[in-house]
Amino acid sequence: MLVLITYDVSTINAEGRRRLSQVAKKCQDYGQRVQNSVFECILDATQLRRLRLELEALIDPATDSLRLYNLGDKYKTKVAHIGAKPAYDMDSPLII
Amino acid sequence: MLVLITYDVSTINAEGRRRLSQVAKKCQDYGQRVQNSVFECILDATQLRRLRLELEALIDPATDSLRLYNLGDKYKTKVAHIGAKPAYDMDSPLII
Repeated sequence: MLVLITYDVSTINAEGRRRLSQVAKKCQDYGQRVQNSVFECILDATQLRRLRLELEALIDPATDSLRLYNLGDKYKTKVAHIGAKPAYDMDSPLII
Repeated sequence: MLVLITYDVSTINAEGRRRLSQVAKKCQDYGQRVQNSVFECILDATQLRRLRLELEALIDPATDSLRLYNLGDKYKTKVAHIGAKPAYDMDSPLII
């Protein structure tokens, strides 16, 4: 399934910036960055459970926000992109 | 249907910051801000078409990125939130 992960991590201090970097790195292990704080990951149910637990362990739930959107297996017609292509991870193929 | 809108608008100059503010304002007209650059909008097909055209007219396609994800009508089980609740638009009810 395609799982979209979006996050807002509070970066008002060094600890927050460290968390932001760790969250981005963790998402990168599982998927493709498509915008600054948006990742698309193709996951099975086990991977999704694991990623979710790993992200929960990284964030500060008092200040950081994490959202996961499950677009299922038939996601290709559900995603539209307008404008500049992401400059991230250009070695990996984009999902759409 | 629930449409998720995510964007990266280049803010290296004043013009970019103006575009960012316009894109956020436009999304706010149609839905609920859930993260800094993430909006959830309940739209019908006509509204989606109109919003998309309006956003296309606002962004600079050379530098800004806009993504739309259609989560359909049965979206309630497809969205998970972890951590801090968004502080935006607290007057409006959150979708989940």
